[in-house]
Amino acid sequence: MAASLLNDRDIAFMLYELLDAESLTRRERFREHSKETFEAAMDTARSVAEKYLLPIRQKTDLIRPEFDGKDAHLIPEIKTAMQAVIDAGLASATADFDMGGMQLPSTIACALSTHLTAAGMSTMGYTTLTNANANLIEAHGTAEQIEKWVRPMREGRFTGTMAMTEPGAGSGLADLITKAVRQDDGTYRITGNKVYISGGDHDLTENIVHLVLARVQGAPKGIKGISLFIVPKFLVGDNGEIDARNDVALAGLFHKMGGHAITSTSLSFGEKDGAVGYLVGEENMGLSYMFHMMNEARLFVGTGAAVMALAGYQYSLDYARERPQGRLLAEKDPHSAPVNIIEHSDVKRMLLAQKAYAEGALALCLYGARLHDDEKTAPEAEQREQAHLLLDFLTPIIKTWPSEYGLRANHYAIQVLGGAGYTNEHPVEMFYRENRLNPIHEGTTGIQSMDLLGRKVPRNQFAGYKACIKAITETIIAAKNVAGLEDYADTLEKALKTLDDTTQTVLGASRSMNIDAAFSNSVKYLDVFGHVVVAWMWLKQGLVAQRALDTPLHDSDEAFYRGKIQAMRFFFVSELPEINHWATLVRELDTTNFDMQPEWF
Amino acid sequence: MAASLLNDRDIAFMLYELLDAESLTRRERFREHSKETFEAAMDTARSVAEKYLLPIRQKTDLIRPEFDGKDAHLIPEIKTAMQAVIDAGLASATADFDMGGMQLPSTIACALSTHLTAAGMSTMGYTTLTNANANLIEAHGTAEQIEKWVRPMREGRFTGTMAMTEPGAGSGLADLITKAVRQDDGTYRITGNKVYISGGDHDLTENIVHLVLARVQGAPKGIKGISLFIVPKFLVGDNGEIDARNDVALAGLFHKMGGHAITSTSLSFGEKDGAVGYLVGEENMGLSYMFHMMNEARLFVGTGAAVMALAGYQYSLDYARERPQGRLLAEKDPHSAPVNIIEHSDVKRMLLAQKAYAEGALALCLYGARLHDDEKTAPEAEQREQAHLLLDFLTPIIKTWPSEYGLRANHYAIQVLGGAGYTNEHPVEMFYRENRLNPIHEGTTGIQSMDLLGRKVPRNQFAGYKACIKAITETIIAAKNVAGLEDYADTLEKALKTLDDTTQTVLGASRSMNIDAAFSNSVKYLDVFGHVVVAWMWLKQGLVAQRALDTPLHDSDEAFYRGKIQAMRFFFVSELPEINHWATLVRELDTTNFDMQPEWF
Repeated sequence: MAASLLNDRDIAFMLYELLDAESLTRRERFREHSKETFEAAMDTARSVAEKYLLPIRQKTDLIRPEFDGKDAHLIPEIKTAMQAVIDAGLASATADFDMGGMQLPSTIACALSTHLTAAGMSTMGYTTLTNANANLIEAHGTAEQIEKWVRPMREGRFTGTMAMTEPGAGSGLADLITKAVRQDDGTYRITGNKVYISGGDHDLTENIVHLVLARVQGAPKGIKGISLFIVPKFLVGDNGEIDARNDVALAGLFHKMGGHAITSTSLSFGEKDGAVGYLVGEENMGLSYMFHMMNEARLFVGTGAAVMALAGYQYSLDYARERPQGRLLAEKDPHSAPVNIIEHSDVKRMLLAQKAYAEGALALCLYGARLHDDEKTAPEAEQREQAHLLLDFLTPIIKTWPSEYGLRANHYAIQVLGGAGYTNEHPVEMFYRENRLNPIHEGTTGIQSMDLLGRKVPRNQFAGYKACIKAITETIIAAKNVAGLEDYADTLEKALKTLDDTTQTVLGASRSMNIDAAFSNSVKYLDVFGHVVVAWMWLKQGLVAQRALDTPLHDSDEAFYRGKIQAMRFFFVSELPEINHWATLVRELDTTNFDMQPEWF
Repeated sequence: MAASLLNDRDIAFMLYELLDAESLTRRERFREHSKETFEAAMDTARSVAEKYLLPIRQKTDLIRPEFDGKDAHLIPEIKTAMQAVIDAGLASATADFDMGGMQLPSTIACALSTHLTAAGMSTMGYTTLTNANANLIEAHGTAEQIEKWVRPMREGRFTGTMAMTEPGAGSGLADLITKAVRQDDGTYRITGNKVYISGGDHDLTENIVHLVLARVQGAPKGIKGISLFIVPKFLVGDNGEIDARNDVALAGLFHKMGGHAITSTSLSFGEKDGAVGYLVGEENMGLSYMFHMMNEARLFVGTGAAVMALAGYQYSLDYARERPQGRLLAEKDPHSAPVNIIEHSDVKRMLLAQKAYAEGALALCLYGARLHDDEKTAPEAEQREQAHLLLDFLTPIIKTWPSEYGLRANHYAIQVLGGAGYTNEHPVEMFYRENRLNPIHEGTTGIQSMDLLGRKVPRNQFAGYKACIKAITETIIAAKNVAGLEDYADTLEKALKTLDDTTQTVLGASRSMNIDAAFSNSVKYLDVFGHVVVAWMWLKQGLVAQRALDTPLHDSDEAFYRGKIQAMRFFFVSELPEINHWATLVRELDTTNFDMQPEWF
């Protein structure tokens, strides 16, 4: 079966009909661009994905990276594919022209990445991390650091990592103990161990730029004593030449359930005389800098999860269209021909759920990318500020909802294929294994829920929260005036009221009761918020689709828009009502979890 | 970390406090047994599991079976472990004494299997299938067939398979095309291909007994023209000696996401001159015979899923007790020591969910096994009939609920471990991969939901359905009279009312509207029914626990029973209310799925 990777029609819908990406070309930063250059980049991405990444996708899954006791080695096809991505300019799509980038909007870059991710999955992890690393140094480093480390990353000669997690402190960054000792020459010597460092070693590029969180001697305890360092695998001379190996050793590789193309490493810094590190910005400000990279990584986790969901949906859809099996229940004649399984109501349910999850998640991620463009390039300061507020607020949802529901989508993709889906004759089980990481890395779902409820919602007198409610309300008002969407608008309005009541109650209670008890259903709160936000994304899509359906259309366009309306209906009828029970748990301050005693398990 | 495999205290609770397994020793068939012999068998199972299966568990996952173009080869440790299981009598625990079995009740055999499955997972699949195969032939074969095929299976010299699925007809058995041609000597020649045959080839035993569904020339179309044949890998002489190889060829192995110890095979029957097959029972009655094996296999799928859930729960619980990380939200002092993660409310939530799913599922499966004992050995015909009715009715739920929710439990087990859970340094990702098959094989969740709503509920004037409602009601009545359980009893009573209203509405509607539309939310119906049944299992456990708590207890016993009460509370507060929305979808005959048109996707 030659399955299509993704639905191009849908990506164009998202970009140009939903998010008006073309309007970005009127901004100064993107004035060299036009819809044509966007589409040319998209064609390039699709072509590189199909030519270099897709053919090796299964091979990267089957042949894991190897550790020879010193270095990690990948199959050479990964290097070839990465080089093709770099040569096509896709690795630095958003970077400045004068850094060798394409200076594309993030919205377009995010759309480009869907093709590459669908075909290349974990291979693209190297590029994503490298970009986020370079963006951090560009934002917080010195001009010299940018020249020395960012430029080669933009050119694809170096890759970058984020080295946070330690064996003794996973999500608990406050307890990290990697040490940094200031030297007379202004550099630092770094000593410590980091684990689960993605891309922490490989043989793809000349050098690897680790961004390492460590504690300078005498720094305060907790998160206020963390600094950020550039710690390269190889030192680099003043003219950019590769110099001696730094004291960074690969201690081992982790064997993951999925995502085998990108190494997951255990790194030892300073086993000999200390790894040379270069401070980024000021001492003890490291965590705030790291969040520049982390927030970007969180958006990419969400997007990756959405793309895995889309890829599984597309694959299982193509399969269901072609696989004859069984008869409709209404058909009693055993002599009748079997139907293709797409005709069975329960298969339609599993495909609709995938469509609702995957396209809802993608719309949310692209909306986030559009906010990223707006916070950087919108003409008015007020617009930029609003976009920043909203993106910052939505980050835990953009990271988590696609991760949790994208995985469910992949569950259904396997289920549509049945026994075949459980074997590696089809890629859906690989998508499922790969996607399982997304609710974990860059902050687990539990961590994100605390971030949302404990920080993002109340921060700045609920500024982000209010901006989000306002944006949703605008869509509701618009939908109330479109025939056919009134009921959806009313339903979302009620859901928003439920969300708001829940928010007020739980935050009010958290001031007068034990906060661990009050927040003990924080994940359910995140579920409620996530579902409301994705329902909003569906209503936005429904608005575009309904308006299109109210004009004369070609048959294929009509079918496309009807599909959007039906997926919106599925989400509103089948998914959104789930929030009522979840909200009740949160609002009634149920303490079942909190009350459970360790010795009772 | 030396994690315990399973909680022995809980298994004893289920057997002796919940199901009164000791009373079975008063029955004729089990009169040689006592609680002591049951416990001795349990000790043996635990010991074989720990000594032979657990040490090779990861190895069987990492080193997959190999196909040399002719046969499948396993690592030799699997044979050693299987032989230990056979030598200990555990492979034929329920078989008659005169067949070399231990003649144990199914309830006890099911409990024994939990230890073996937790440690051996897919390795135990060979034994499970062999038993179910032997039981079918014992029930429907001739005395000669029993002597020739069942005895060596009971002795562990042969294994057995179930060969149903064909490449062109997965779940659609009505369309299977494997042919059987009657010979003058009374045997048949079988020609056709079967896929996803578990244990279809291996080098563990002298012979393999395939039970093959095929169509005798001239048989009616559809399921009424299917016959069942014994088709051995090697022919067997009159004195039981292994004879020539039959015309059954291994065409290839499937590479599954999990469960690597047991081969999944593609078999070609009759590529040369037809495989010799021996008819079981009468022609065209094959599917009804096969259901003897299939129903047993479905109960084992549920049990296996429950055990994977238990094993993941136990492992993540042990991990959470020992892993320090982070602080409670109420703790603001960064100088305070980190707490073990079991103290965090959200980790408690994930552990409670696992406990509620896993122990709820296990109670259900053991209850099913107890019904199996009762249908065979209860003293009164009326009791046997009632037990048969109830077990037959509950089979789709026992198969599906543990499969779907056991997988969710394993999802949480990974999540409790975080990044570590995604690597093969811990077994939880393996449990998750293994468990993913359970909602698929032996009838997918969709198929089970149709079986429940379309067949099991209305059959015989709702006889099984009524028996189930009656049994649940009895527990509700008992709980109403126990202080502390009244609210739970009321809640379950309301849920039962919701279920019953939903049942009447959807079946009523199915007579007047398109049945594919009426049944288009059948999986939601199964979800509702499954949740009600598992809530019932929790109320049963709560009854035992509350009565125990009302008496003086040791501290450890008190903690155990408090844990049961808290898990019941979790299920009733957090899970059971989900049914309201699902039931609404079914009852309001929502046709979103049915209405979706293939071209709209």
